[in-house]
Amino acid sequence: MLPIWTQSLHHDGSEIYVSNPLPQLNDHVIIKLRSSVDAPIKTVFIRAMLDGEFRMVEMTKSPFNDKDSTVLWASELPIKQLKTDYRFKIMTDTGAYFYTAQGVSRADSPDFNSWVIVADYEAPLWIREQVFYQIFPERFYNGDPSNTVQDGEYERFEHKSVKREWGDSPYPWEQGGSMDFFGGDLNGISQKMDYLSDLGITALYLCPIFKSGTNHRYDVEDYFTIDKHVGGDEALAELREVSEAHNIKLMLDITPNHVSFQHPWFTALNDNRHAETADYFYWDDEKEAFETWLGVPLLIKLNWGSEKLRNIMYRDADSAMQKWLKPPYSIDAWRLDVANMTGNFHAEQNDHDVWRDMKDALKAIKSDTYLLGEYFQDGTPHLHGDELDASMNYQGFNIPMRRWLGGEDIAGHDNQPYADSELMSTEAMAEQWENFIGAIPYPIALQQFNQLDSHDTTRLLHVTNEDKALAKVGLALLFAFPGTPCIYYGTEIGMTGFKDPDNRRTMIWEKDKWDSDLLNYTKQLITLRKSEHALKHGNFQVLYAEGDGVAFLRQSNEGLLIAIGYRGKEAEIITINVARAGIADGGMLSDTLGDKSYIVSNGQIEVALQHGSALLLKS
Amino acid sequence: MLPIWTQSLHHDGSEIYVSNPLPQLNDHVIIKLRSSVDAPIKTVFIRAMLDGEFRMVEMTKSPFNDKDSTVLWASELPIKQLKTDYRFKIMTDTGAYFYTAQGVSRADSPDFNSWVIVADYEAPLWIREQVFYQIFPERFYNGDPSNTVQDGEYERFEHKSVKREWGDSPYPWEQGGSMDFFGGDLNGISQKMDYLSDLGITALYLCPIFKSGTNHRYDVEDYFTIDKHVGGDEALAELREVSEAHNIKLMLDITPNHVSFQHPWFTALNDNRHAETADYFYWDDEKEAFETWLGVPLLIKLNWGSEKLRNIMYRDADSAMQKWLKPPYSIDAWRLDVANMTGNFHAEQNDHDVWRDMKDALKAIKSDTYLLGEYFQDGTPHLHGDELDASMNYQGFNIPMRRWLGGEDIAGHDNQPYADSELMSTEAMAEQWENFIGAIPYPIALQQFNQLDSHDTTRLLHVTNEDKALAKVGLALLFAFPGTPCIYYGTEIGMTGFKDPDNRRTMIWEKDKWDSDLLNYTKQLITLRKSEHALKHGNFQVLYAEGDGVAFLRQSNEGLLIAIGYRGKEAEIITINVARAGIADGGMLSDTLGDKSYIVSNGQIEVALQHGSALLLKS
Repeated sequence: MLPIWTQSLHHDGSEIYVSNPLPQLNDHVIIKLRSSVDAPIKTVFIRAMLDGEFRMVEMTKSPFNDKDSTVLWASELPIKQLKTDYRFKIMTDTGAYFYTAQGVSRADSPDFNSWVIVADYEAPLWIREQVFYQIFPERFYNGDPSNTVQDGEYERFEHKSVKREWGDSPYPWEQGGSMDFFGGDLNGISQKMDYLSDLGITALYLCPIFKSGTNHRYDVEDYFTIDKHVGGDEALAELREVSEAHNIKLMLDITPNHVSFQHPWFTALNDNRHAETADYFYWDDEKEAFETWLGVPLLIKLNWGSEKLRNIMYRDADSAMQKWLKPPYSIDAWRLDVANMTGNFHAEQNDHDVWRDMKDALKAIKSDTYLLGEYFQDGTPHLHGDELDASMNYQGFNIPMRRWLGGEDIAGHDNQPYADSELMSTEAMAEQWENFIGAIPYPIALQQFNQLDSHDTTRLLHVTNEDKALAKVGLALLFAFPGTPCIYYGTEIGMTGFKDPDNRRTMIWEKDKWDSDLLNYTKQLITLRKSEHALKHGNFQVLYAEGDGVAFLRQSNEGLLIAIGYRGKEAEIITINVARAGIADGGMLSDTLGDKSYIVSNGQIEVALQHGSALLLKS
Repeated sequence: MLPIWTQSLHHDGSEIYVSNPLPQLNDHVIIKLRSSVDAPIKTVFIRAMLDGEFRMVEMTKSPFNDKDSTVLWASELPIKQLKTDYRFKIMTDTGAYFYTAQGVSRADSPDFNSWVIVADYEAPLWIREQVFYQIFPERFYNGDPSNTVQDGEYERFEHKSVKREWGDSPYPWEQGGSMDFFGGDLNGISQKMDYLSDLGITALYLCPIFKSGTNHRYDVEDYFTIDKHVGGDEALAELREVSEAHNIKLMLDITPNHVSFQHPWFTALNDNRHAETADYFYWDDEKEAFETWLGVPLLIKLNWGSEKLRNIMYRDADSAMQKWLKPPYSIDAWRLDVANMTGNFHAEQNDHDVWRDMKDALKAIKSDTYLLGEYFQDGTPHLHGDELDASMNYQGFNIPMRRWLGGEDIAGHDNQPYADSELMSTEAMAEQWENFIGAIPYPIALQQFNQLDSHDTTRLLHVTNEDKALAKVGLALLFAFPGTPCIYYGTEIGMTGFKDPDNRRTMIWEKDKWDSDLLNYTKQLITLRKSEHALKHGNFQVLYAEGDGVAFLRQSNEGLLIAIGYRGKEAEIITINVARAGIADGGMLSDTLGDKSYIVSNGQIEVALQHGSALLLKS
């Protein structure tokens, strides 16, 4: 059992605790640590690793006065390496404690628990300012009915394309085979730009729009061509123009893991398996076939050991990924689908190498490109400044949040027996959040891509079992959490849906069918997110995680907010220790989402909560 | 708070829980997990990572009968990658638990907490059979007085070499500058081979013997020449012959991080800093000098970015490290001094790359070479089968053990303010052991190099404040711990000593000055270690870690032992839960170090302990 005072220890890699979280090589940074004033600490040392050796740097206690409940320890650290690991050794009369990014312990532990500062990392800082909006293009708006896929236009195995009526339910996979089309296109998105702008979002994340024969287009047939059914290359150029006029950024979705069995690179091998593109794929001698994605014959696994593939995909000036980064398309970001598997095949695990190489090639032509990898698993090994800028933060935010809100485990969509259908405890959710934030440099945590729902999961209202109050708690915590928030189209107006393809229903444009309360709430959160420096740049410290209530601090150099969420059925009054965040007695905290204020007394605030309470307290 | 039943969960990478801990690619292994029979577990899944994707494999509960206190869950896992990560997801009526190499949690966590199985790793299995003996050559035995360094023969800055009398105390550094010589040599070691053989040790670890002007010879002047004062190359060839006749292996100590300022590679640069060997070193434009080791002008830092350096050190057939692996020297192992800093200099962190390259070059000519790196820090990032075979296990064994025995922190040798002078709690010691074992593949844990003392630390009896009973506890736990044990010369006969150079006193050869009780105890432990399969190949499970007592299990496919150590001052009876290790009621456990036996009852044994108790119970 650790003594209570150790709970007052706090450090993270944010600007509150690191003077320059994004230093250049040979800079010096000031590192700070918070502890309660009365913690029985004799001295504190930073233990950094420099060239493989411990560098012990004694910290100085900052001046403090009687009013202060916490004190800051500080010292300078030279940044000599691209990655500098550190932890704290806290000396007391009863021996030393180690404080790492994974917690406090009397025992020392491997370096993977340490905080890391990365140097010379050119972070795409614009990401911190964004509120993303994810669109499944086929289902957002049909702006040009003339380009809609026609009945029978495509055929894939036993399925044929079917033209559907806007508003009807997508066919289940068995029935439609992802071949039912409603006609959503890029023209439609351009036409709805005022809606998006009015909502307040600042960036679009579009699911795939490359040439393909299915409605999801994850089975790409040509990385160089925008599908004619969403309007072709011209429609993307136009969308770029319209969105730029509204100050809205663009992120496209590319699948580097596999291509469609209809892709010419692959069909070229039908007659001659040694044709020029053969080394883009993995031949399996036993099966006498090329490897597919998890055995799906539609999707052929790409082999990133191929230099030629790397050239055509991202290295060459006229490569696919460079093409769309350049005018007239000038996209701002790439979302890398199935990033987790990309480059990985049995004995050949090329993922680290591919991301480094891709990053070097793409950032060379556009240094602030945002590279986002899809990871339902742990993406943190790729988030140290030399590979990706962020991962879709399923493990670090989405999964625990959904399990806490509604006990919905993504694995449960398919009734998998390993799905956990119980509500996640608040303690466990907070622990999981901290585990994953602690595993990466904090500036990258501020770029992580957070969603409550997506085209790959059930919708938020399904998670909360149509409980809108609870959905609002989720939204408030999403917008308060470190990283960039993303709304899945329609969630803001109260659309619901079970798993794929039910989560891909057509967008509702009849205003009388909108949940205007939810829409206004979402707009309020978007406005707050864009105006509050602390939400964009602030630190992360869990202040309360018990029973059904959770509270965390976001503090930057320009302010602080405390986010509070409550899922309990019965009303409850909770006591939150805010002294731990350095907030002095007498301070007033006011709810930016409501009208209540709270005065700090004895280092605490008392907050009355009821089902669906969500607060964003500002000092 | 985790429920009590979770304490019954156990898995490690040993042969008890993994059918083949050293598989080849495309093998299948059976993974097992132990839990108490009455744990409220519905199902268990292995969650392995395969090509970046979760592979969930349901485990089967083995048949069990009424007598059993634990049950084993098992399932098969395909080994398709060089590294396969896995953890367990344990389903209960109240939700899922994750069990990783770093413990049980309701929250998921990054992959670095997972167990890892490495494939195609050719482990130097002979290491498991060894008991090492570390010799500081200058101080073991003077076998050839004619080759002893003479007064004034060498000069280094303000110090001159001084010839000393065997048995006198080494001069403190300030006085002697590591330039006082007692004349110990390789001839002496050859002459004392009967002593070593009688002691029972099976392998020698010799501190540096390459050409040098100091008594420790860590400032190497020629990696290709054995110092004439220890007998030259011929004496090593002779030692090889004599040791081989006694079935004793040889490990030499090499410093790849730096050379002496007298090394010809460096002196060649005195007149022309651009001479041919310039790229072996780091030139600092600001200081207008070559980089040194931590600022010590005697030791010049090597630059492993240099291909030429790699060639001459280990790649070429006539390279230094290959020379000594070949006849007539045919050494079995390399201890890599200052491994932690080797290859690392500011923005250039080449350590992983150098070890991979070195391993490939050296194992190509002698596949069972044991490569041991010195790490006072965390060496585990280099211990995944593709770099080093082991680290000097300071963090994972030595440091917590010494802090538990005597509250002695190695950092305290120099009165550093960050030294922890308090006794380490038993819980913290056990936690630190588990943290570091959990961070590496278990077959590598069985190769870790464990010492209680060395030429770099105070001696064991200094740690225990000359308390011999406590020293025996340390020795018993050393010999019971996973990894290969190493005795520092003289510790077996009761030599003591403070830090360097007091820990490098001349070996005592007058038998009447020996502690024969300690010597016999050490021999008993050596014999046990060599005969007990479980100590060489067994698993590791902490069964008790409270107050002043610690107990852990070592179980292999051929037997089990439970090691118990007690440091308390007062006698105490402790109750150890052995049911957790699958030992049924009625079973008898007998102390191989004493004469007591214990019958298991209610899943427990009661053990009466007094100060200095050390038991090795065998079933």
